[in-house]
Amino acid sequence: MMLFLSGTMPTFAAQIYVTLRPSVLDPAGTAVESGLKQLGYNGVTGVRIGKYIQLHLAADDAAAARQQLDRLCDQLLANPTIENYRFEIAEVAPQ
Amino acid sequence: MMLFLSGTMPTFAAQIYVTLRPSVLDPAGTAVESGLKQLGYNGVTGVRIGKYIQLHLAADDAAAARQQLDRLCDQLLANPTIENYRFEIAEVAPQ
Repeated sequence: MMLFLSGTMPTFAAQIYVTLRPSVLDPAGTAVESGLKQLGYNGVTGVRIGKYIQLHLAADDAAAARQQLDRLCDQLLANPTIENYRFEIAEVAPQ
Repeated sequence: MMLFLSGTMPTFAAQIYVTLRPSVLDPAGTAVESGLKQLGYNGVTGVRIGKYIQLHLAADDAAAARQQLDRLCDQLLANPTIENYRFEIAEVAPQ
């Protein structure tokens, strides 16, 4: 027999990658690239700097977690006009 | 017969993840978390914001690329006192 405790939603660990769209200039990346060249790393090109966001999320199941992540990325974590995002989720084993 | 062109080093695409050490407070993450709660996402906890850096690197082989990435992360991309980093590399197929 299996017991399901009602009221305890599973928790998902999410890793979210927010990157500038390829057509958008990345001044911070350009600055880092020229800094690297000044340090002697001449083989480095195409530096792009994005955000890497980690969070935990309670949701009924993986599909609900993905849906919620899509919404919160669109609303707060990414700027859809100039940024793309993708994410990975993994269920966290209950304590 | 195979021809190797000397002088053309392979190129590696690197993805670098820079995160705050777990013991270091993340005020930006806390701000995002309270912003999400105000939007109604009450199931979100533990928001941590790091950097996601993409670049291309010319190196003799994968081991040399990894060694160079370790050095440039320590020197410029991460602050070893408060941040951790890890990276993945993949050789880019020659054009």
